[in-house]
Amino acid sequence: MENWTEIDRRVRLWIEEAGKAIRRSFKHSLSIQTKSNPNDLVTNIDKETERFFISNVRQTFPGHLILGEEGQGDHLSSLNGIVWIIDPIDGTMNFVHQQRHFAISIGVYEDGVGRLGYVYDVTHDELYCAERGKGAYMNGVQLPKLSSVPIEKALIAVNATWLVKNAYFDERKLVELATKVRGVRSYGSAALEMAYVASGRLDSYLTMRLSPWDFAAGKILIEEVGGVVSNLSGEPLDMLNRNSVFASSPGLHETILHHFLLEK
Amino acid sequence: MENWTEIDRRVRLWIEEAGKAIRRSFKHSLSIQTKSNPNDLVTNIDKETERFFISNVRQTFPGHLILGEEGQGDHLSSLNGIVWIIDPIDGTMNFVHQQRHFAISIGVYEDGVGRLGYVYDVTHDELYCAERGKGAYMNGVQLPKLSSVPIEKALIAVNATWLVKNAYFDERKLVELATKVRGVRSYGSAALEMAYVASGRLDSYLTMRLSPWDFAAGKILIEEVGGVVSNLSGEPLDMLNRNSVFASSPGLHETILHHFLLEK
Repeated sequence: MENWTEIDRRVRLWIEEAGKAIRRSFKHSLSIQTKSNPNDLVTNIDKETERFFISNVRQTFPGHLILGEEGQGDHLSSLNGIVWIIDPIDGTMNFVHQQRHFAISIGVYEDGVGRLGYVYDVTHDELYCAERGKGAYMNGVQLPKLSSVPIEKALIAVNATWLVKNAYFDERKLVELATKVRGVRSYGSAALEMAYVASGRLDSYLTMRLSPWDFAAGKILIEEVGGVVSNLSGEPLDMLNRNSVFASSPGLHETILHHFLLEK
Repeated sequence: MENWTEIDRRVRLWIEEAGKAIRRSFKHSLSIQTKSNPNDLVTNIDKETERFFISNVRQTFPGHLILGEEGQGDHLSSLNGIVWIIDPIDGTMNFVHQQRHFAISIGVYEDGVGRLGYVYDVTHDELYCAERGKGAYMNGVQLPKLSSVPIEKALIAVNATWLVKNAYFDERKLVELATKVRGVRSYGSAALEMAYVASGRLDSYLTMRLSPWDFAAGKILIEEVGGVVSNLSGEPLDMLNRNSVFASSPGLHETILHHFLLEK
């Protein structure tokens, strides 16, 4: 029997420590200066942060498995057992250009079921977290259950590039959707955008190609407050491969799926 | 002879006080709860904040004029004299839905020339400010001069709705631009998006219909670090009427203007 309280306590400590280290790396340097060598910076801090989490997990919970972006995790063909799905820096382009609007994303799954989810906005020190069945929180304040929002009052996130002809999805459906909602935003970090859906700041988020570490934590957050996460066809996400992602408050998920996404 | 140091000192105090009051209004309420009656909330806090600034300006600097969104300012047909251009809450949709990603925007102009500019991200307590000829700052850290960025490395802000057929601008030009840059974002607050251009977090920002209070402060910030602010035809902004706005780091402004916006 896993001690989820103890796992939760550890993750929070690690996130806090990693966040401090990342913020320290920004001190006295403004984003413009980091642009001269973006790839180095991403490599160093991304890899360093992943290494930090992985070594802590392996040391503290030796029976657990790890799925991560930077290739230091395990090679998994199933989600059996306890699996940590980690993105040390989700939104690397923002990280490099902006030193903000990126997040640490950690989901802990048990036999494929999301148990603990964390999205940490490092720059603004905002931690979104959820434990399955025990509610979702932002910096200690409980997030209310999501309610249904009519499409004309919805604020959604879709990147502008998906409204342009592309190889993944009929852009005309998203163009049609964009004209019907109250507003469209794009932040460039899937983890943060899903945390915004969970906290009601966005009503829906749609995108084409995410890996499990991009959405593993956000999915737990959103489902814990009654939201729905699927691919753009309304099917469950494949937790081991790339997916399109459509995360939304309930009701609106149905509406958008049936009136826009599945439309011929 | 105006005492700009004294004006600057006062504005900062007022912004700090207004920011505290707005943040206090958020306490213990999450964005989802404010949605039930968004219009009331906007009206109250927007108007209250504008009233606060206007009464302070009138009392402290009785010879100055005021141009503002909420209709409590002066009716101006020129920018002669000292004119305060105030948006108490820029990004009202974000304010209501998100309780973040909005800003207080204040520009102080003398005979049409921007002297002092302030964009304050209230939720994250980040003050972007500039005094003409004395540099631009974010929370006390000086912003470096903007340098030229090649289009394929540019991170730009354009709202998705402008990539859809609309009455204001040939959307195909922006679609073409969106496919050529490194990334596209949209935050929904012109003042913040211009502050991001000034601080190098975005390389360009393009939009269709802004009023003077939306861009008055941002224009001062951007020009102080060597950026360029024009309308989408490359012409100077009309400071008394609605404009399209194209704000950018130098070099990239030329490139986008001549290779995309002015293209037949």
